[in-house]
Amino acid sequence: MSNRKSNEMECFFKPKGIALVGATANPNKGAFSIWHNLKTGFRGPIYPVNPRYTELDGQPCYSSVRDVPDPVELVIVFVPAPMVLPVVRDCVDRGIPGVIIESAGFAETGETGKKLQDELTEIVRESDIRIWGPNCMGVVDAVSRHVFSFVSPAIWDDGLPAGDVSLVVQSGMLSGGFLIDLMSHGIMGVSKVCSIGNKADVDECDLLEYLIKDSDTRAICLYIESIKDGRRFLHACRSSRKPIVLLQGGKSEKGAVAAMSHTASLSGNGAVWSGAMDQAGVVRADDFNQMMDLGRSLAIHPEPLERETGRVAVVTFSGAAGIVSADFMDRYGLELADLSENARKLLKGVYPEWMPVSNPIDLWPAIERSGIERAYGEAIRAVCDDSGVDAVLFHIFLGGLALKFNLQSAIEAARAAGKPTFFWLLGKKDIAEAFQKEARDLGVPVFRELSRAVECMAAVLSRKRKKGVLFKYPGSEF
Amino acid sequence: MSNRKSNEMECFFKPKGIALVGATANPNKGAFSIWHNLKTGFRGPIYPVNPRYTELDGQPCYSSVRDVPDPVELVIVFVPAPMVLPVVRDCVDRGIPGVIIESAGFAETGETGKKLQDELTEIVRESDIRIWGPNCMGVVDAVSRHVFSFVSPAIWDDGLPAGDVSLVVQSGMLSGGFLIDLMSHGIMGVSKVCSIGNKADVDECDLLEYLIKDSDTRAICLYIESIKDGRRFLHACRSSRKPIVLLQGGKSEKGAVAAMSHTASLSGNGAVWSGAMDQAGVVRADDFNQMMDLGRSLAIHPEPLERETGRVAVVTFSGAAGIVSADFMDRYGLELADLSENARKLLKGVYPEWMPVSNPIDLWPAIERSGIERAYGEAIRAVCDDSGVDAVLFHIFLGGLALKFNLQSAIEAARAAGKPTFFWLLGKKDIAEAFQKEARDLGVPVFRELSRAVECMAAVLSRKRKKGVLFKYPGSEF
Repeated sequence: MSNRKSNEMECFFKPKGIALVGATANPNKGAFSIWHNLKTGFRGPIYPVNPRYTELDGQPCYSSVRDVPDPVELVIVFVPAPMVLPVVRDCVDRGIPGVIIESAGFAETGETGKKLQDELTEIVRESDIRIWGPNCMGVVDAVSRHVFSFVSPAIWDDGLPAGDVSLVVQSGMLSGGFLIDLMSHGIMGVSKVCSIGNKADVDECDLLEYLIKDSDTRAICLYIESIKDGRRFLHACRSSRKPIVLLQGGKSEKGAVAAMSHTASLSGNGAVWSGAMDQAGVVRADDFNQMMDLGRSLAIHPEPLERETGRVAVVTFSGAAGIVSADFMDRYGLELADLSENARKLLKGVYPEWMPVSNPIDLWPAIERSGIERAYGEAIRAVCDDSGVDAVLFHIFLGGLALKFNLQSAIEAARAAGKPTFFWLLGKKDIAEAFQKEARDLGVPVFRELSRAVECMAAVLSRKRKKGVLFKYPGSEF
Repeated sequence: MSNRKSNEMECFFKPKGIALVGATANPNKGAFSIWHNLKTGFRGPIYPVNPRYTELDGQPCYSSVRDVPDPVELVIVFVPAPMVLPVVRDCVDRGIPGVIIESAGFAETGETGKKLQDELTEIVRESDIRIWGPNCMGVVDAVSRHVFSFVSPAIWDDGLPAGDVSLVVQSGMLSGGFLIDLMSHGIMGVSKVCSIGNKADVDECDLLEYLIKDSDTRAICLYIESIKDGRRFLHACRSSRKPIVLLQGGKSEKGAVAAMSHTASLSGNGAVWSGAMDQAGVVRADDFNQMMDLGRSLAIHPEPLERETGRVAVVTFSGAAGIVSADFMDRYGLELADLSENARKLLKGVYPEWMPVSNPIDLWPAIERSGIERAYGEAIRAVCDDSGVDAVLFHIFLGGLALKFNLQSAIEAARAAGKPTFFWLLGKKDIAEAFQKEARDLGVPVFRELSRAVECMAAVLSRKRKKGVLFKYPGSEF
C-alpha cells in the first residue's frame, strides 16, 4: 500500500502476542492447524477468539478481539468471508497494528467478494492498520519458527530446517504444498515464506522492501501474478544488493486469463516488463524448483562478485558429461577456462601418459591410473591455484565402487581460493541423498540436472558489476 | 558398418555362450565386475580366458579363445589395448560372430591408439566378425538380465528393474553411472542400454536398426557425439514407428572440441542436422534426465496418435500451478481445452456457488466444499467424458492432510476414454516416492518439475501424423 506504513511490517513477523479469530476444536478446519502451528513455534502469548467457546485447548476463549488481554500485535483471521469485516473493525478500534486474513471468498469469487475486499482496502486507507491477505496462507518463518498459517502441521515433521532464502508467493496452496515438498526433500532450508493472496493492502513491494532489510534473508524469490506498483517494485530491485529471483505467472495470454480468476490479478505484459526487470538485475525463473535452485545458489554468493568472472573449470568423471557441460556453458554465456601451465603440470602427474590435458578435465583415466584420492586431490589443487579459473563445476558419481570424494576438503580449498563451486551429482539413491545433505550443510549447491547446475552457475557469475552496469543474466527464454 | 552385417547383431544380445578375455581374480579390476555380472544374470555357459590362470572361480581358465569349448558366440575383451589385436585375430580364426572390446587406449588416446583401432576396422572389413567398441562399457539388458559390462555390480542392488526404453550411449562412464542412478531412484526401468564407445565397427545405426525391430523396446534414446552415416541414420528414423529421442553432445564449438578428445568424434554441425532430424520425427533433448523423461513418456504412447490432439485439461490443487501450466502449454504449443457443457455441469456440482468453472480446473475450493474424493472423482469424470479434451495433466499434492487420490481408478477412467494422462507431483518425500513407484508400475508418467511434465506431454501429443506429415516437436531450443 503506502510507503508511510512500510516500517510497520514488523508486527507480521515479530509480534509480541497473537489472537486467532475462528479458533476451533474441529481438527478438520484450517484454524485448528493455525492454532497447532502457533503453539508449536511461537514463544509469545496466543489467544483463541470464537464466541462459540468459553474455553479452548485448556485456555479461556474470547468472544471478540476487544476482550483479549494484552499484548496483541497481530490478529489472524480465519472465519467465513462475510464475518471478516466486523472483526477487522474491532481490530482497528483496539489499535491492533496488523491483521492476517487467511479466509477465501473475496475478490477472487466475483462481485460480492470484490465489494468485501474493497471495504477492507477502505479501512486500511482510513486507519493505521495493515492487512495481509485475504485468500492467503500467511507466513512461515523457519528461522524464528513462527508459523502463522493453516499450512499442514506436517511441516514440522522434518524439523522445519532454517535457511537464508525468503519466498513471496501469490498463492496459498502452492506455498504450503511447495514448502512441505522442499522441507521433506532436504535439499534446502528457507527463511521466511510469505503467502500474499489477494493483496487488499500488503503487497509484493511491502514484503520485498522488508526482506531486503531482513538480516535472516540472503536471497529473495517471488512467485507473483501481478505487480501493483511497478515503479516501486523496480526501484526496490535496483537498490537491493541481495539477489532477487522472479517467477511471474500469467505471462502467456491463456495464463493471464487463468490468473484473473485465481487471485483477481491483471498480469502485466511479459514483454514490457522483461527489459525493465533485466536492467534492475532481477533473475528470471520459469518454474518453481528452478526458482528455488536459483535462489539457493545466489544466497550462497549474494554479493555481486568484484572481479571479471565467467571462466569455468569442469572436473568430471565422464567425457560425455564434460561435452554436454560445454554445450550448456555456451548457452548460458560461460567460458571454459584455459588451464595454466602449472595446472597442466599437476594434472599430467596423475594422468596416463597418452592423455592430453584439457578442460573439461576428464578424470576417469587419472582415477584408473592414480587412484581416486590422488586424482581428485591434484585436480582440486590445479584448478584452485589457477588464477585463470573463476569457478569450478564438479561432476560427482557415487556408485557401487568406493568412489570416495572428500567434499569438505574440496570445498575448503575452493573457498580459500575464492572460487565458487557447483556440483552435479549422479549416483545410487541413498549415497546421493546423504551427499546432498552434507553439501547443503556445508553451504554448496548440488544439482541433479546438469543444465540446472550450469544455469545456476551462470546466474551467480553474471552478478558482476562493472561501472554500475549489471551483466544480463541470459536464463529465461520466455 | 555395412548393411550386409546388420542382422548379425543378435550375437551381442542373445549369445549361446560367452568367453571373457582378461578374466581375473583381482576384485579391483573391471574384468572382475564383468565376470560377476555374467554369473549373476546370463543363463548360458561362460568361460574365463587368461593365460595366467589354469583355474578361476572354480572353473577351468583357458589361455586363449582358441581353446574354449563350444558354444561361444560372443567374446568380451578387457585387456590392455596393445594385447587386443591378437585376441581378435584368434576370434576371427575360430569363427566367432561378435566381440565386445571394453578396453580403452585406442583412437581416443592419439596416433598410436588410432593405428590400433584402424587395424580393428581392417579386420572387420576382411572377415565376417562384428566388433563392438573399443573404449566402451558394453551392454546391459534389464529384460533378459544380460549384463555384458564392467558396470559396477551395484547395478543389481535395486533388482535391475526392467522397462521398455532402450538407450544407446557413446560414453562408458556416463552410461554406467547414469544407469545406477536411474535404477536406484525407482522412476523407471530400462530395456537395453548400449555403450558404443569409439565405434570401430558397430555404430549408432546398427543399434538403432536393431532396436527398432526389438520387441522389448518401445522407445529409443540416444546420446551420441557424432553420426557416422547421416543418410542411413535419418532413413532409420523416418521408417521407425517407435519414438526416437536424441541428445547430441558437442553442439557448441567448445563442446565439439571436447568431443574430439573424448571419443575421437567429429561432431556434425548442429544447425545443419537440426532440420533433417525434425523432419525425420526425432525428438531432441538437451540433458540426460530430460532425454529419459521424454523416452519414458513416449514409450507409454509409442504409436503416433490418430486423431487431432493438443487440447489439454489441467486438474490442479493450486491456482498458481494452473497458471504456470498454462504458460508452459503456450510455450510448447498445447491448448487449454474448452470444457463441454456437461463437464461444466459436473464440476458445478462440487464447486462452491461463487466459483466459476474454467480450465485449468482449480479443485481446491471444491475439495473444501465437497471433500477430496468427490471433488477429484467428478473432475475425472468430467474431463474423461469430454470429447473436446485430448489429454489430462493432473497436479497432485501429497502432504500432511489425508489427501487421498485414487490413482488406479483415475488411470483406468482415462485409459477407457483413450486420453493420455500426465502427473505433476508435490509432496512429502516418503509419500511422494511411494506414489511415483505406484505410477511407474501402473504405466503413467509422473514428474517433479512442472515444465518437464508439460514438455513430455507436448512430445507425446505432437506425434500425430496428418497425411504423412509429422508435427514438429517444439522442444529443443538450442
